[in-house]
Amino acid sequence: MVRAIMHGCNGAMGQVISGIAAKDEEISIVAGIDMRTEQKNDYPVFASLNECRVEADVVIDFSNAAAVDELLDWCAEKKMPVVLCTTGLSEVQLAKVEETAEKTAVLRSANMSLGINMLLKLLKEAAQILAPAGFDIEILEKHHNQKVDAPSGTAIALADSINEAMGNTYHYKYDRSATREKRDAKEIGIQAIRGGTIVGEHDVIFAGQDEVITFNHTAYSKAIFAKGAVQAAKFLAGKPEGRYDMADVIG
Amino acid sequence: MVRAIMHGCNGAMGQVISGIAAKDEEISIVAGIDMRTEQKNDYPVFASLNECRVEADVVIDFSNAAAVDELLDWCAEKKMPVVLCTTGLSEVQLAKVEETAEKTAVLRSANMSLGINMLLKLLKEAAQILAPAGFDIEILEKHHNQKVDAPSGTAIALADSINEAMGNTYHYKYDRSATREKRDAKEIGIQAIRGGTIVGEHDVIFAGQDEVITFNHTAYSKAIFAKGAVQAAKFLAGKPEGRYDMADVIG
Amino acid sequence: MVRAIMHGCNGAMGQVISGIAAKDEEISIVAGIDMRTEQKNDYPVFASLNECRVEADVVIDFSNAAAVDELLDWCAEKKMPVVLCTTGLSEVQLAKVEETAEKTAVLRSANMSLGINMLLKLLKEAAQILAPAGFDIEILEKHHNQKVDAPSGTAIALADSINEAMGNTYHYKYDRSATREKRDAKEIGIQAIRGGTIVGEHDVIFAGQDEVITFNHTAYSKAIFAKGAVQAAKFLAGKPEGRYDMADVIG
Amino acid sequence: MVRAIMHGCNGAMGQVISGIAAKDEEISIVAGIDMRTEQKNDYPVFASLNECRVEADVVIDFSNAAAVDELLDWCAEKKMPVVLCTTGLSEVQLAKVEETAEKTAVLRSANMSLGINMLLKLLKEAAQILAPAGFDIEILEKHHNQKVDAPSGTAIALADSINEAMGNTYHYKYDRSATREKRDAKEIGIQAIRGGTIVGEHDVIFAGQDEVITFNHTAYSKAIFAKGAVQAAKFLAGKPEGRYDMADVIG
Repeated sequence: MVRAIMHGCNGAMGQVISGIAAKDEEISIVAGIDMRTEQKNDYPVFASLNECRVEADVVIDFSNAAAVDELLDWCAEKKMPVVLCTTGLSEVQLAKVEETAEKTAVLRSANMSLGINMLLKLLKEAAQILAPAGFDIEILEKHHNQKVDAPSGTAIALADSINEAMGNTYHYKYDRSATREKRDAKEIGIQAIRGGTIVGEHDVIFAGQDEVITFNHTAYSKAIFAKGAVQAAKFLAGKPEGRYDMADVIG
Repeated sequence: MVRAIMHGCNGAMGQVISGIAAKDEEISIVAGIDMRTEQKNDYPVFASLNECRVEADVVIDFSNAAAVDELLDWCAEKKMPVVLCTTGLSEVQLAKVEETAEKTAVLRSANMSLGINMLLKLLKEAAQILAPAGFDIEILEKHHNQKVDAPSGTAIALADSINEAMGNTYHYKYDRSATREKRDAKEIGIQAIRGGTIVGEHDVIFAGQDEVITFNHTAYSKAIFAKGAVQAAKFLAGKPEGRYDMADVIG
Repeated sequence: MVRAIMHGCNGAMGQVISGIAAKDEEISIVAGIDMRTEQKNDYPVFASLNECRVEADVVIDFSNAAAVDELLDWCAEKKMPVVLCTTGLSEVQLAKVEETAEKTAVLRSANMSLGINMLLKLLKEAAQILAPAGFDIEILEKHHNQKVDAPSGTAIALADSINEAMGNTYHYKYDRSATREKRDAKEIGIQAIRGGTIVGEHDVIFAGQDEVITFNHTAYSKAIFAKGAVQAAKFLAGKPEGRYDMADVIG
Repeated sequence: MVRAIMHGCNGAMGQVISGIAAKDEEISIVAGIDMRTEQKNDYPVFASLNECRVEADVVIDFSNAAAVDELLDWCAEKKMPVVLCTTGLSEVQLAKVEETAEKTAVLRSANMSLGINMLLKLLKEAAQILAPAGFDIEILEKHHNQKVDAPSGTAIALADSINEAMGNTYHYKYDRSATREKRDAKEIGIQAIRGGTIVGEHDVIFAGQDEVITFNHTAYSKAIFAKGAVQAAKFLAGKPEGRYDMADVIG
């Protein structure tokens, strides 16, 4: 039984993860960390990691960028594996993530869902077969009308995964309306749709001569990210220091 | 039997229209106009309208912008109905179209396919029901990698049709990557995908709370535009002067 | 302010409706009916309608078929408008619904969502334009792996709506693997996909020569049915006896 | 330069292959075989293989089942590699294919397109990751209204590829309307849509908890099968005896 500390336990995702972990026999949340300590959980909640004296094997983090520095310091010192799900980290923080990974196991991915991480892997193979045969690559993502950034971090991660497999020979194109010119074979167009409460949908399109192959991922709730985080925590407990991502979890 | 003159008969679309008309018992192409007179057709071909002495009921035009001025003058003078399918007309030419329509019947549409023109009509009703209920409206179009303009004229026509039904209260948004802000309820996002040999695909998306309705049109060949032009010609023969479009044809 | 009785208030849909109504200033749930009276609500809960003495303008029903007979009797007697959302009614019960509608206002629809009901309306127009032009009509639905019936009631309702607009000249085809023959032009194929937790997705496909138009509706949660029920209740309060459906609500 | 004999050169696919080969500098069609010898080609046409005395490296076959026996005998005798694209072979003929492969190189695939064959490969990996995580697998195919068989051979091949990767533990389900029961976790539903002139579309759907991944392949013309056949011929020339398929070609 893996013992986890839930960092940011009283946020929306922290609560979803707690619910999923409660039904999973292979993991147990033994403590929570949150500035808001009032909420009732099945486990003790502390205002900060330094106050927490509970024995654990791994930390799951779904907090906010401001809380991440202290978290990384603590995990490095305790040699505590950490699944880092907080997004919007600064360049400085990303560098600190790498440093921390020299002391303990750190898992961080642009998207925690099993489906997206499987696609990140398969798309490398698809690109290596289809791009030399003249297929153009385009990405489309759809999210709810409250999302302020575009394109999504996951869309960028999908493009980066393909680009890496192709020797980083592609550039990205976000707006086709500004110029009047034919498509460049070495570009990946990335378009963003916003509307309603769409949780998250991604299309990776390979368009060739008279033939189009599309990889679509549709999320119906944020529970898929919570499920991925729990899977990652079970994988990471007991692992040596180093940088991990979801690709390692799905094998 | 409607007797048609095919203006631009030896171009790609002129040939497709000739093939479709040949199988249609209600219409016959009695003459063609084209600078390239060498090609064999089942009808006589003339280098210009002024050389053509064949009796006819309607002209179908799929030529190029440079040939349209002479065409409009000739049709106005002869009071000859004309189905105008050439795109890329200048502002001056568009004004001339309106003048011509005071003398004879002129039919012109952003897209000649039956499916797109039906959608232009139904989308007005959909918008009037869904927009007041808080649905966001987005448009996506996909075309081949040789197309230089974006978004497509058809995508703009779809947005315009919706906007007109909503009292022209919407504005259009082509690029979401440039700014970091929530979606404005009064915007219609229009995105363009380019790749391979995609003939033309359009999605109009109404995204509400936990519910998304999508109207999709997929073209598999340019024959659908030729078919629409033939339908339009049969409709327009014998009609009085005035501006018509495909909405009149589908009723 | 419309005063509603929630019949089946402690079921899953009853609770979702209660949540939506609580945020709506034009309607208030003043009493609930449920055999399970223990659960806490913001309104009094009674084990049966006969025990309820609270003044109200309309009943919203999301209970089960066994509870519907008593409900219809009570509404007929009290001349109380009722939004009937329970599915799986017997032939005898459906006849009783018609009888009840002679005494009071009864609203019942195969699907309570705004989007599906808008499609039921627009599809009639689409079919009348596209079917005479030779387009074939096919329906596809996708639902979660716990659903026992196929095709869905909503898929059948979509087919029926089209068929009615076409003078009931079509028949339905559920399985294409059993026979080896070309498609009959007068059939509507209806196919069912089952998997995961898919809430409900419906495609109505018009496939013509080199052109396909698809109407897609995707539900992301059951809240859309609750929202429709609340809208229907606000519409139905004060209406004279008769049979109503969601088409009346969306106008 | 690979020298190919086109078996069935005056059929629709034979002509498309001839056109594609004519533009390809690495292959040349040096002779054609067809009962209809009247049609003009850039190469000599013979009524049967026995009359053909032209030197060649490979045969491309797109004829009909009745012509395949003689073809296989001739290739076995001449030790001539053959790309076998004719479908609808009998059990006896399929056995003969295996025998022939002991004498010469024989390449045969359910679908000759690059895209489908890439998916056949990637889907094995996808299934091995997603099926153990509880994802349900469903397949949908769409074809034109003249196709008499359902589901398509390609849909079956996609299912077989997944099933093989999963140790052949799945069974297939074609009709969900006949029974009233929950989906079996070990079934692959395969549904067929028929309409208009749809060339061929396949969806492989992995539906999990709140997450759906779809692999879509859309064909816009039969040229993709011709292109695949030409690729296969270039690959097969000079190869030793044995059974090959498109998976070998795409590597």
